Amino acid sequence: METAKRHMHLNLFLMNTGHHEASWRHPDTSPRRITELDYYCEIGRIAERGKLDSLFLADTYVLPVTVRHKVLHGLEPFTLLAAIAAVTSRIGLIGTASTTYNDPFHIARKFASLDHISGGRTGWNIVTTASESAAYNFGDRALPDHAQRYRRADEFVEVVKALWDSWEDGALVADKDSGVYADMDKIHPLAHKGAFFSVQGPLNVPRAPQGQPVLVQAGSSEDGKSFAAKVAEAVFTAQNDYRSGQAFYRDMKDRANRCGRSPDELRVLPGLYTVVGDTEAEAKELERELGELTVPAFGLQRLSTLFKVDLTGYPLDAPVPLELLPKADEINGNRGRYELIENMARREKLTIGQLIKRTAGSRGHAAAVGTPAQIADEMERWFKGEAADGFNLMPSHMPGGLADFVDKVIPELQNRGLFRSEYEGYTLRDHYGLPRPAGRGREGVRL
Amino acid sequence: METAKRHMHLNLFLMNTGHHEASWRHPDTSPRRITELDYYCEIGRIAERGKLDSLFLADTYVLPVTVRHKVLHGLEPFTLLAAIAAVTSRIGLIGTASTTYNDPFHIARKFASLDHISGGRTGWNIVTTASESAAYNFGDRALPDHAQRYRRADEFVEVVKALWDSWEDGALVADKDSGVYADMDKIHPLAHKGAFFSVQGPLNVPRAPQGQPVLVQAGSSEDGKSFAAKVAEAVFTAQNDYRSGQAFYRDMKDRANRCGRSPDELRVLPGLYTVVGDTEAEAKELERELGELTVPAFGLQRLSTLFKVDLTGYPLDAPVPLELLPKADEINGNRGRYELIENMARREKLTIGQLIKRTAGSRGHAAAVGTPAQIADEMERWFKGEAADGFNLMPSHMPGGLADFVDKVIPELQNRGLFRSEYEGYTLRDHYGLPRPAGRGREGVRL
Repeated sequence: METAKRHMHLNLFLMNTGHHEASWRHPDTSPRRITELDYYCEIGRIAERGKLDSLFLADTYVLPVTVRHKVLHGLEPFTLLAAIAAVTSRIGLIGTASTTYNDPFHIARKFASLDHISGGRTGWNIVTTASESAAYNFGDRALPDHAQRYRRADEFVEVVKALWDSWEDGALVADKDSGVYADMDKIHPLAHKGAFFSVQGPLNVPRAPQGQPVLVQAGSSEDGKSFAAKVAEAVFTAQNDYRSGQAFYRDMKDRANRCGRSPDELRVLPGLYTVVGDTEAEAKELERELGELTVPAFGLQRLSTLFKVDLTGYPLDAPVPLELLPKADEINGNRGRYELIENMARREKLTIGQLIKRTAGSRGHAAAVGTPAQIADEMERWFKGEAADGFNLMPSHMPGGLADFVDKVIPELQNRGLFRSEYEGYTLRDHYGLPRPAGRGREGVRL
Repeated sequence: METAKRHMHLNLFLMNTGHHEASWRHPDTSPRRITELDYYCEIGRIAERGKLDSLFLADTYVLPVTVRHKVLHGLEPFTLLAAIAAVTSRIGLIGTASTTYNDPFHIARKFASLDHISGGRTGWNIVTTASESAAYNFGDRALPDHAQRYRRADEFVEVVKALWDSWEDGALVADKDSGVYADMDKIHPLAHKGAFFSVQGPLNVPRAPQGQPVLVQAGSSEDGKSFAAKVAEAVFTAQNDYRSGQAFYRDMKDRANRCGRSPDELRVLPGLYTVVGDTEAEAKELERELGELTVPAFGLQRLSTLFKVDLTGYPLDAPVPLELLPKADEINGNRGRYELIENMARREKLTIGQLIKRTAGSRGHAAAVGTPAQIADEMERWFKGEAADGFNLMPSHMPGGLADFVDKVIPELQNRGLFRSEYEGYTLRDHYGLPRPAGRGREGVRL
């Protein structure tokens, strides 16, 4: 568990050529490398050099319509993270998988397998799928509504956890003399029959090194936050200013508390978009350069998708047509991001073109554009002011922007005693300071 | 395609501590390593030293009831093969995935991703799931019958192939100057609505290095063979003698021919259980040693599962109760194996104990127990006599038995001009001498 002294937790948001939507057009990036393992190995090594807690890989089950002008995520999380596991030794590996379009048995098994392969370095970012078009890659039924998806997610996660616990520690005996390979008294069926799933169990993979991979969540709707407070050990969130960061942090810790959990069992990690320069001017120049590379047609498409209103015919200097936008509670998926960006447009009275540029890099996340000391200042403020337990880092471009962060900002944080200088443990639970869940015996896995 | 001179194709059946059911009890094996990546890396390196075509990983979605006395397969194929891909450079990686308990979108995507990660080294062993208990890990419905599973498999595979072709070669443009990342004229929806699946597409991974990963199949029922003749590029099979090997080989090539395919487009690869010794006596002694390590309770359980008759109370010296066994056409899953072992018991009038020992190593596959020259002789006979295009190698124990095969039998085969001395290409299609499928344009992916 957490010692008296808090330390920051830092994940890298492993996003193709970087978090800025035009990063792939920058001279320093290689957008063709996003399907090559070498590229991710290089990023993994840089992140491990920086002693980061983990790599975090987002995911969707649909080709974005914006792919004409926007680099892909590229590869599938289980396969990519397993490959990265083989060429790294300490960094955590957090993969995204949807509870709406998967089976609990497969998900429990793949994460257990990945946890063995990586020596206990995995986490599961639980999503319920926000994309309405993704639904049609899995049948002819529309995306279930928000509440329904979260009810399914609740049961899904309970089944997965029970499958992980269906092997007790020590069930694998492998006693050559007696010929007993597994102790059947320590392997338990679930015989689960619920509203969404019937799963007999047990799992066909021995208990994972971490007992259970770390559970991560990023929902920011009411349903999403309740769910996270109940099950998540780390929460990723988009908060674009310090005050809202503090409010969210307090809210999540309170919610966890009300679920009977210690606030320490839930790490709150806002996204942080970073542009690092040796001088402030250099950082701002890089941000301006990236801004110049945005493709207006893409920006219009991105806002249209977010706002569920077709803006593609609008001139860039027209004001954002706030009166046409739907109410937040009509949004089924990505609701938090919708509210955040809609608020930004309303508050600052932005034109469409301005909103595109304002959100092209940070996309609604907090942004730190400046020198290593300035970035470290901002991170320290959020961390000490209880707006964050750490950050989900979103370098403007990669691998260059990541290398700059690791080689320039990390030493600043280390010098201030805010971040580890060496890994102290081996598993993701070690890095996060989270306990390894105990087993629960035969009756315990009966839900 | 194949040049005038035929060469053998050799896959390693990547089976935990080896193919002999008691291999895990042998002093030279480490049954605890089956959940450790290091173990598979070591095997991958040995296999690559031997210039083998591929590693083949079988899979099931259920914990075998026999796990009390029998080492597990251990890890999940996509995660394990991706990790092995990262530490090998040439060897092919064939993973098993069921069409009965998966979604085509996920399977297409994971194999496409694995193909990128490995630089074009993947193959999909298509199974329809034979285990009746596996069904209950995915709902409360019984395993669909054989014919129904194959109807679903037919459509499943067509959808997966269309998803692989939903990106044409060259669709990923990544033109920094124009801001065009993907050429939408080369990315195609499927809009598929069939009896089993509705899948909109396109895939969210660019076209794989091999165009399509290699399709492998191992069904030996009538439905299975028809399916393989239509879609498979390699067929794994259990044939326990040369004559039945020849008959199966001819049958499969004829079937492929009747489907309008060249016989060269379908590799027939029987399993070959190997026990290597520097002398014949040494090999036989090792086989005897392994036989002594079999656990009778496990053997009885294994035969009970195969025969669908409870033999656990029977004495080992009782004859196999042939009169109690079901008819082959009542067997739903693993029917080929059932017939083969039932025939063996009938033909040779075996006791239960004898049948257990006879099948503990080879489990119904051809067996070669002897010196490197003797094993090479047998392989040459099968290969030249058109009983095999190569073999799915099943070393008695691993990694030792594999290393013996690679270091002693492979040079024999190379000296005889039967097997490659160096990899000539990079992809699994290169190794198998199979062409890279062309794309098929927008209309082509409409099934």
